[in-house]
Amino acid sequence: MKARILVTLKNGVLDPQGKAIEGALGTLGFAGVAGVRQGKVFDLELEGEDRARAEADLKAMCEKLLANTVIENYAVEID
Amino acid sequence: MKARILVTLKNGVLDPQGKAIEGALGTLGFAGVAGVRQGKVFDLELEGEDRARAEADLKAMCEKLLANTVIENYAVEID
Repeated sequence: MKARILVTLKNGVLDPQGKAIEGALGTLGFAGVAGVRQGKVFDLELEGEDRARAEADLKAMCEKLLANTVIENYAVEID
Repeated sequence: MKARILVTLKNGVLDPQGKAIEGALGTLGFAGVAGVRQGKVFDLELEGEDRARAEADLKAMCEKLLANTVIENYAVEID
């Protein structure tokens, strides 16, 4: 079973890396970029076919390791 | 207009960070994780409403700055 986890910064949390990318895109001539926020994506390959169990496990993985829930949101998608 | 760009490693490219995460998840007691690959996500806020133009621009951004196309794939989604 394949799963994807998206970890993104919460609104209001400063993202200097995103700001740097926004500046670089402007320098490269891409006008009209009003904002860039960078996040992380994790593609997981899971054994077993129990989707409910997998979803619970994936959320626990985010809470314990993959996301810093003080400043980051996460979303879990199971294919 | 909001857009999301996903940049992931191509198949066959080693991902030591993903391997480290896989090991850490095992240590935390999550059995059944057969593989982890880490990638990047960029959430962009674009001015203008021309979707075709935006899609072309986003692909050019990936080619020029956001992805290393030798080792990475990218996918563009426009909301």
